[in-house]
Amino acid sequence: MSERPRGALSCPLPLRSGSVGLQHGGGGRAMRELVETLFLPAFDPDGRGERHDSAVLPGSGHALAFTTDSYVVDPLFFPGGDIGSLAVFGTVNDLAMAGAEPRYLSAGFILEEGFALDALERVVRSMASAAERAKVRIVTGDTKVVDRGRGHGVYLNTAGVGIRPAHVDVRPARIAAGDAVLVSGDLGRHGVAVMSRRAGLEFETSIESDLAPLASAVSALVEAAVDLRCLRDLTRGGLGTALAELALDARVDIEIDESRVAVLPAVRGACELFGLDPLYVANEGRMVVFVAEADATRALEALARIPETAGAARIGRVREPVSGPGRVTLRNDFGRSRPLPLGSGLELPRIC
Amino acid sequence: MSERPRGALSCPLPLRSGSVGLQHGGGGRAMRELVETLFLPAFDPDGRGERHDSAVLPGSGHALAFTTDSYVVDPLFFPGGDIGSLAVFGTVNDLAMAGAEPRYLSAGFILEEGFALDALERVVRSMASAAERAKVRIVTGDTKVVDRGRGHGVYLNTAGVGIRPAHVDVRPARIAAGDAVLVSGDLGRHGVAVMSRRAGLEFETSIESDLAPLASAVSALVEAAVDLRCLRDLTRGGLGTALAELALDARVDIEIDESRVAVLPAVRGACELFGLDPLYVANEGRMVVFVAEADATRALEALARIPETAGAARIGRVREPVSGPGRVTLRNDFGRSRPLPLGSGLELPRIC
Repeated sequence: MSERPRGALSCPLPLRSGSVGLQHGGGGRAMRELVETLFLPAFDPDGRGERHDSAVLPGSGHALAFTTDSYVVDPLFFPGGDIGSLAVFGTVNDLAMAGAEPRYLSAGFILEEGFALDALERVVRSMASAAERAKVRIVTGDTKVVDRGRGHGVYLNTAGVGIRPAHVDVRPARIAAGDAVLVSGDLGRHGVAVMSRRAGLEFETSIESDLAPLASAVSALVEAAVDLRCLRDLTRGGLGTALAELALDARVDIEIDESRVAVLPAVRGACELFGLDPLYVANEGRMVVFVAEADATRALEALARIPETAGAARIGRVREPVSGPGRVTLRNDFGRSRPLPLGSGLELPRIC
Repeated sequence: MSERPRGALSCPLPLRSGSVGLQHGGGGRAMRELVETLFLPAFDPDGRGERHDSAVLPGSGHALAFTTDSYVVDPLFFPGGDIGSLAVFGTVNDLAMAGAEPRYLSAGFILEEGFALDALERVVRSMASAAERAKVRIVTGDTKVVDRGRGHGVYLNTAGVGIRPAHVDVRPARIAAGDAVLVSGDLGRHGVAVMSRRAGLEFETSIESDLAPLASAVSALVEAAVDLRCLRDLTRGGLGTALAELALDARVDIEIDESRVAVLPAVRGACELFGLDPLYVANEGRMVVFVAEADATRALEALARIPETAGAARIGRVREPVSGPGRVTLRNDFGRSRPLPLGSGLELPRIC
């Protein structure tokens, strides 16, 4: 496998004025110029990529993980990130959740006529920087332009290809009664950061998105040779939806100890203001980890050594299902329990 | 490698009423329902896929081709196809243009709030049918919903992964003076079909898009063991733009014999009406093939045996560059020549 190109950000891009026009999506001179002066210097500074319709990647005997996500976050820039870093880390994390080592990304831009070229440049630079941090290469791309009023500046799609070590087998069906449930950090910051910016609110303590790549943490778990059962990043719908889905898919009950789930006071306050349950708010750098009980402590130690998951904690355990489809229960300090159902999906639109 | 699932279309989907709401993109119940009742029955009728963030694909020692395209065609349904079949064949063709055998696709939906669910169902069925014809599997996907007025019904992204045989090496740099230039059929039908529908025009002879998968034709060329130099599908910007770009990238001159380039009379007439040059109009099932002169006849015979390329013809040849960057020249019956420059990109917006 080839290395990440060095110096992806050392090559200065020209400052840009003007805005996106329909000609930038037409396949002619304007699009070629956009590719040559903006996308290639950012994503392929060494000029190693062949200019062709597909990227060609070296083969390997390993299984591949393949995933895609589109990003329509509103606003495009928010505290702690932007649609560009979100599109890179979001897809990197989806690959990591399959136990794979992320390697290659594609980037599909749907630009709205009139979108400022300097804003596009900020997004592209952010993607290049995020790709460098996550050790992936953006190897192929596409640009389309839609009429003014038919988009929202930029929508992004990234698909990703990763390599999965032969001995890794993480999937919902492997979750079993007795497993420990870990969460990689405090919850709710991404959703609150985006909502606050959208609502034009400033909190006394600025809340930054938790947006971060999780692949190093997954590698650390794999290297620690713990019996990893399942991983899921806590994006749309948050912890509540992820657990409810996994309980249904794995046909198990899951019991969570509310006092162990970390939510920053500022996030809790903002959620009260918005009328949201922080357990259902989206995160972009948090995951739930199901691991065999005997390996739970070792898994937590491995996570604690990685900056992105330094706040990992054990929050609950998997039980035999009492009856019917799997359910999730949240137990508070007073011993009271309440169910965590699947969310309706109306909580937070356009959060990612 | 696994086989295409059988009976992808035999499983009837429920007829749908209503429209897309923001909750369908929220990651909760509504999205799960959409995935379970619409996407999975169409794309994974046998239920073999794990429900997880990434698809896991078997490894192979072969090089991989990886590509992406977003589709924003207006209108969504046009004579000869729709955004769904376009998104499948378009990405299949990008993989084929790298000499690869297309295997797996991802599907990213950006839905507009208010889009009719029965129209979405038509698009999804069309994708499933196109995937079956092109012998690829749609293995992973994503759904986002944007506010009313921020999209156009549906935008689609498909990324694709294919497998490239070791001995295939097609890329612009391999084009050399003396090579024969072939085109796989008549030109301009896709662009004219879309433009006619958009303009609300009906021609006496209905013009259907040439939309088609080209992978079988590329396989036939590979099996015929011809010295294949480069392939390019003639999408945005048409033959004119593709040749101009390849001449620049390969630093060669290309000479085309105008009388050998097939354009249907109805397409020519429509182009006159729209003020378009048919050589710059988009196609979605046509490619240009550069092949060593000695193998040109054998390559044409191989293409003639495949239904999608039955109208293939030899249209020109590659020359040493006379001076400066590579140029394309079109020679007519009277021996006159005119240059084919890179188009501006303004010709036909939102054609794919």
